[in-house]
Amino acid sequence: MFASRFICICGLPGIGSVGKVAADYLATALECNTIMPFFSHSFPPQVMVCEGLAELMHAQLMRPKEKENLLILTGDAQPLDVVGMYGLAGNILQALKEQGVTDVITLAAYVGETNETILGTATDLDSATALGECKIPLLRSGAIGGLNGLLAGLAPLYDLRGFCLLATSSGADPVDIQAATNLLGAIKELFQLDIDITLMEPVIEEQEEIETKEVDMNYR
Amino acid sequence: MFASRFICICGLPGIGSVGKVAADYLATALECNTIMPFFSHSFPPQVMVCEGLAELMHAQLMRPKEKENLLILTGDAQPLDVVGMYGLAGNILQALKEQGVTDVITLAAYVGETNETILGTATDLDSATALGECKIPLLRSGAIGGLNGLLAGLAPLYDLRGFCLLATSSGADPVDIQAATNLLGAIKELFQLDIDITLMEPVIEEQEEIETKEVDMNYR
Amino acid sequence: MFASRFICICGLPGIGSVGKVAADYLATALECNTIMPFFSHSFPPQVMVCEGLAELMHAQLMRPKEKENLLILTGDAQPLDVVGMYGLAGNILQALKEQGVTDVITLAAYVGETNETILGTATDLDSATALGECKIPLLRSGAIGGLNGLLAGLAPLYDLRGFCLLATSSGADPVDIQAATNLLGAIKELFQLDIDITLMEPVIEEQEEIETKEVDMNYR
Amino acid sequence: MFASRFICICGLPGIGSVGKVAADYLATALECNTIMPFFSHSFPPQVMVCEGLAELMHAQLMRPKEKENLLILTGDAQPLDVVGMYGLAGNILQALKEQGVTDVITLAAYVGETNETILGTATDLDSATALGECKIPLLRSGAIGGLNGLLAGLAPLYDLRGFCLLATSSGADPVDIQAATNLLGAIKELFQLDIDITLMEPVIEEQEEIETKEVDMNYR
Repeated sequence: MFASRFICICGLPGIGSVGKVAADYLATALECNTIMPFFSHSFPPQVMVCEGLAELMHAQLMRPKEKENLLILTGDAQPLDVVGMYGLAGNILQALKEQGVTDVITLAAYVGETNETILGTATDLDSATALGECKIPLLRSGAIGGLNGLLAGLAPLYDLRGFCLLATSSGADPVDIQAATNLLGAIKELFQLDIDITLMEPVIEEQEEIETKEVDMNYR
Repeated sequence: MFASRFICICGLPGIGSVGKVAADYLATALECNTIMPFFSHSFPPQVMVCEGLAELMHAQLMRPKEKENLLILTGDAQPLDVVGMYGLAGNILQALKEQGVTDVITLAAYVGETNETILGTATDLDSATALGECKIPLLRSGAIGGLNGLLAGLAPLYDLRGFCLLATSSGADPVDIQAATNLLGAIKELFQLDIDITLMEPVIEEQEEIETKEVDMNYR
Repeated sequence: MFASRFICICGLPGIGSVGKVAADYLATALECNTIMPFFSHSFPPQVMVCEGLAELMHAQLMRPKEKENLLILTGDAQPLDVVGMYGLAGNILQALKEQGVTDVITLAAYVGETNETILGTATDLDSATALGECKIPLLRSGAIGGLNGLLAGLAPLYDLRGFCLLATSSGADPVDIQAATNLLGAIKELFQLDIDITLMEPVIEEQEEIETKEVDMNYR
Repeated sequence: MFASRFICICGLPGIGSVGKVAADYLATALECNTIMPFFSHSFPPQVMVCEGLAELMHAQLMRPKEKENLLILTGDAQPLDVVGMYGLAGNILQALKEQGVTDVITLAAYVGETNETILGTATDLDSATALGECKIPLLRSGAIGGLNGLLAGLAPLYDLRGFCLLATSSGADPVDIQAATNLLGAIKELFQLDIDITLMEPVIEEQEEIETKEVDMNYR
C-alpha cells in the first residue's frame, strides 16, 4: 500500500519515548542526513549544551543516504503550548508537501488494555482498510495527543494521507525499549526496509543513560 | 420574528452538553450535511480515533436537506484559551455572514434560581423585546461564557443579530436530557420546524453512553 | 499645567475599583456619550446580560456633553493575559493620539504606608515636577500594574505625556468609596471641573450592591 | 579570538542576578549611553516608579563612550512567556545584526558541581575550541534557559556567533557578588578591557539594597 508513495516517518518525544527512539534508530540505521531544521517559539526556551557546544531546541527532517522516497522527522521536544503545537505541525507538513511527500506516518505509544503489540489508525477510510489488510490491527477508539497526533490529523488539510502506528506500552518506563523495537519491526515490514533491529538494544541502553541523567535548567 | 430571516442555530459543548446535544439532534432530524469545517489552533491538540479512523477536533457548519434559510453549527470542543475562543468565533461569524445568515442563535444551559424552563437574551433591544413577545422570558442578569456567549455577543460586530436561548439545568449531569429537550421544544415553535422531539430520548441515551466511556489522552 | 492640553482620564477596574468608580462618576457627572468601544481577544470570553440585553465585555472612550479637550475612558474588565493588556493599551493610545489627545491620566489605588491621600507619577521629569507644583505629592518608588500602569507607561511611545494619580486605599474593600472620592477631588481641582462630588456617595452605594451580587459565569 | 570582531555582551536577570549585575557594571565602567530600548508585550505589565518618574519595563542596548566594536545589552526583566522570550530575542538579534555586531556573548550563572569558577559554551565547534584556548573551560552538558540561553542559541540564525559565559554560583543568593566579579574578570581579560573590577563591591551592595526592598505590585 506504500509501494508508490513518498513516506515521512515522524517520531517526536512522548510516552515511553517510543516514537522518538524508533525514529532516531531509523535515522542512524539508514545513515540519514539532516536536510531541514524546524524551530518553534514554543519550544522550551533554552539551549542544550553538549561538550561545550550549545544548540537551540529543534526538530529536524532527515534523508536516508540510499533510500529514496523516505524521510525521517524527529525532534528534541514538544512545543510547550497548544498554539505552538499546531503552528509547528503546520510548518512541518507544509515543508513535507513541498518535498513531495504523500504519506505522513507518526509513531507513538498506546497505553491501555489490548492483546495487540501494534495498533494503527489513518485519516481516511481507504487507508485505514489498507492498514488492516497489512495486518496492522486498527485502534477502536481513543485520542492521540501532541505532535504525533496533530501531524497525522492535520495531514489531510495538506492533501497528505495521515497514519499513526502505536506500540502498546505500560507507560511506566521513561524509555520503553520493547515497544520501540515492536514499532521498528512493523515499520521494517510495512516499508520493506533493510535494517537490523537486533542492534536496537545497545542503542537504547545508551539513550536510557542520557535520559536518567538529570538535565534540568539550572543555569540562566 | 424570524419569518424572513436566515438563521444559524449554534450549540457548542458546555454545561450539561445541553446546547451541543440539542444542535446535534437538530442536525440529525433535519438530515443536515456538513458544508464547512472550522479548525482552531486552540482546540485540544489531539486526534479522536473511532473505528480506526483518526479525525482532528473541529466545529462544523451544516445545512438541512430540505429546509432553506437555516444552518446548524456544532463542534467537538471549546478552544482551550481565550484568544482562541475569540478567534474561532470571529472566523465562524465571518463565514456565516458570507453565507447570508442574518441571525445567530446560540443554545446553552442556565444554572440558577428561576421558575422558567427556558430563558432568552438578545444583543439589541428590539430583538429582546420580540423574544419576549414570542413568550421567551428574558434573562434578568448574568453572564454567558465560552463560544455560546461569544458567538451571540460578537454577532453585532458582523452586522448580525445575536440571541442566546438558555435551558434551566441543575448543572449536575454530564448530559441533561430534559434541558436539551426543552430547548428543542422552544426552537421547534420559534422556527416552526417539523421535527419529532419524542425521538430525543433514545438518541440521548446513546450519547450518554459515549460520554461516560473514559476517553482520556492515553496515547502519544 | 493642563490648561492648553487635551486630556484623557482613564479608570479601569483594579484594587478597590478606585479608578473605575471615579471614571464612571466623571462620565455621568459630565454627561458623556460613548464615541468608541474597544474590544480585546483577551477580555473574559463572555457576554454580560442585563434585563435581557447581552453585551460583549469592552472598554469605551467617552466625550463630555459640553467640556472640550477632555475624554474619559473606562471598561468592564482588564484583559486576562499580559499580551492582551499590552495590545489593548496600544490600540487605545493609538486612538487617543488620533483624537488629538496630548496627556493620558490614569487613576488607580495605592496600597502602602503613607500619610498622603493622593500620590502622583509621570513619565517625564518636567511633568513629574509640574505635578509636584500642583500639590500632588510624588510616589517615591513602586510599581503600577495592569492597564492603569501600561496606559501611562506606554504613552511616551505615542508621543503622549503619561500620568498616574493614585488614591491611598487599604485594599481591603471591593469598592473603596473614600479613595475614589479623594481622586475626584484631586481631578476636580487639577482640571477645574464643575462637578459635584457630594453626589458620589449614593452612586457608590448602588455600585456596591451590583458588585456584591454574585455574577459568576453559571451559564454556558 | 575576538580581536577583529564586533561584540555585544548581554546580561539579563537570572539566577543570582549574575549576568545582569556584571552587564550593568560594565555599562557604568565604560560610560555607556543607551542607543536603543527594546519593549516586549510579554514583559511584566507594569511601570516601575522611581522618585515620581514612571518607566515601562524594557531592555536596552548601550554603547561605550570610547570603546569601539563593543555594545552592552541589559534589561529590567525576562518576558513572562516563552513566545515572548523568543520574540524579544529575535528582535534584539536583528538589531544587533543591523548594528554590525558579529559575536553575541551572554552572561549567566552556573549552579552545579564543578571546580571551575567560569565555564563557557559556543554555538559552533571552532568558537568552542577557541574559547578553550583562551583558558575558558567548556561546559560539558546542561541547559541554559531564558534570554541568556536564547540570545546565544538563536545567534547562528542571524549569522552571528553565539557564546555563553557562566559563573559558578550556589544559586542561593538573590545577588551573587562574587560570581558577577568572576565574570567581569574573565570578560576583562578576554576583551582586554581597561576597567577596575575592585570597584565592584560597593556597587553591588547598593544593588542588594534595592533588591531586598520589597517592590511588589501593590498599586493598580
